[in-house]
Amino acid sequence: MRLDEFSLIGQIRKDFPAAEGTKGIGDDCAIISQKDGMETLISTDMLIEGVHFLIDRISPFDLGWKSAAVNISDIAAMGGTPKATFLSIALPKNMSQNWIDDFLKGYHNISERYGVSLLGGDTTSSLNGVCINVTIQGECPKGKALTRSGARPGDLICVSGTLGDSAAGLKCLLSDDKDWPELLQKHYRPEPRINEGLALSKMPGIGAAMDISDGIASDLRHILEESRVGAEVELSRIPISESLLKICRANDWDPYELALCGGEDYELLFTCRPDSIIPIPHHQIGRITEGSSLKWIGSNKEYKGFSHF
Amino acid sequence: MRLDEFSLIGQIRKDFPAAEGTKGIGDDCAIISQKDGMETLISTDMLIEGVHFLIDRISPFDLGWKSAAVNISDIAAMGGTPKATFLSIALPKNMSQNWIDDFLKGYHNISERYGVSLLGGDTTSSLNGVCINVTIQGECPKGKALTRSGARPGDLICVSGTLGDSAAGLKCLLSDDKDWPELLQKHYRPEPRINEGLALSKMPGIGAAMDISDGIASDLRHILEESRVGAEVELSRIPISESLLKICRANDWDPYELALCGGEDYELLFTCRPDSIIPIPHHQIGRITEGSSLKWIGSNKEYKGFSHF
Repeated sequence: MRLDEFSLIGQIRKDFPAAEGTKGIGDDCAIISQKDGMETLISTDMLIEGVHFLIDRISPFDLGWKSAAVNISDIAAMGGTPKATFLSIALPKNMSQNWIDDFLKGYHNISERYGVSLLGGDTTSSLNGVCINVTIQGECPKGKALTRSGARPGDLICVSGTLGDSAAGLKCLLSDDKDWPELLQKHYRPEPRINEGLALSKMPGIGAAMDISDGIASDLRHILEESRVGAEVELSRIPISESLLKICRANDWDPYELALCGGEDYELLFTCRPDSIIPIPHHQIGRITEGSSLKWIGSNKEYKGFSHF
Repeated sequence: MRLDEFSLIGQIRKDFPAAEGTKGIGDDCAIISQKDGMETLISTDMLIEGVHFLIDRISPFDLGWKSAAVNISDIAAMGGTPKATFLSIALPKNMSQNWIDDFLKGYHNISERYGVSLLGGDTTSSLNGVCINVTIQGECPKGKALTRSGARPGDLICVSGTLGDSAAGLKCLLSDDKDWPELLQKHYRPEPRINEGLALSKMPGIGAAMDISDGIASDLRHILEESRVGAEVELSRIPISESLLKICRANDWDPYELALCGGEDYELLFTCRPDSIIPIPHHQIGRITEGSSLKWIGSNKEYKGFSHF
């Protein structure tokens, strides 16, 4: 039987109900209530060589950066402040000290930028390739976390930046095309939207939010499921960078395929009431509807997101 | 250059100092102060196929049990109450649904026994073998966590149960010897000493504490380093089970080698002032001294603990 990432998560969610005072599986982070008016946010991400990265196509510095960045992004998605990470890493025995030093430099560089300390972890050997797991802990004031379940019919759907650049960068990397450094950069060093998430969490009228890790074709569906709503997205409103347009023209690629299904943009996807003031740069791409369907306006194609299975 | 688990941890600890109000690398868990008089405890452990377990020698139920148990044990080591775990798991694509179901059953069984909920995680595919990472979150009242740095010269050194059974179980497993189910059981289903840790944390006069994962030959050294003390351990006082004695006689093994260096006992190793009341079953095995050396009384052999590199 073929494994499916989301059905496995669904099974776990059914078997393990969250305890009182906590909110478990279904958002970018779990939420644990503290007695002092704050909530602890925790998330974890695993990166496997050959699945999430190719060891000879990413520098150890960038891999260290990205391992921390994708976790910091989960805190951004909740509108929280990242505090600490826990790094587990399994390394083949022949891994050089230089590789490890550079990995830690990249991890340290982005951690310092966002004020995140490294409080623990696990180091072990591996028989086959590098395996990395990062757990992040952050916080937000009680009741202020942005979740996937807050969307309402009539909400506008917005994203915090252009989509598809990272996916195009991945294609460049796989075909050894070095002509698009700005796209490669987006793939190697995603910038978590911490300030944007914090700004959104302080405004009234923000509905649901999450970060875009698998592409909005997949990620938006999580918001629809958790909020029990539908959506219409206008393809003509999807923000696409100049570079992405150019590389798609040069290679005869569909920019919408990359923008909607590519993943790893780590921009924020959020909804808001139509009269809200949105305190960050953003692009409105659609609207939440009644029902449960996701309609792509301006396309006959069915777009599906990225799965790691 | 050959990697060394502990020098890598030392490097990380130097590069990433812990933030104010936190205590990071160096104990079984990190400690994060809350404003409400409690402390959050967090720890993480990675289990790699071929390094920590052989997939054809452990049932998925036991692997699920053990993955949670070794993390719950880290909370026990600090005298805390376990609250929630986060499970990351990378699975080869051909893994059966039955295997996954049984893994989750084992994980659920022990989690429920200790009142621990599963609040999140990550699921992904793997090209080579199963990789599991569990992060656990627990708590204890402020200032009550048992740490590795609390030992003082004159303290008694104690362990909460017999040592070496799990290591002997591992030898049985590797040689396909099914005659020692009680030793195999100790290896497959370690029982975290949560109640014992909680009881110790409430008593005055307890010095340092940790759980025994790599064997006391290695683990006791962590207490000595963190507390800046030395120790004398009397081999004749090391608690060894009847089964371990029997299997060692039958196979001409050194029971002390297994008891001191074998690892995975998950008993508590702790120190206490000589006049303390110790509220749990225990065996006194030695004494904390001035200086920094670790002396084995009753042996000419140098015992070294287990390393995953």
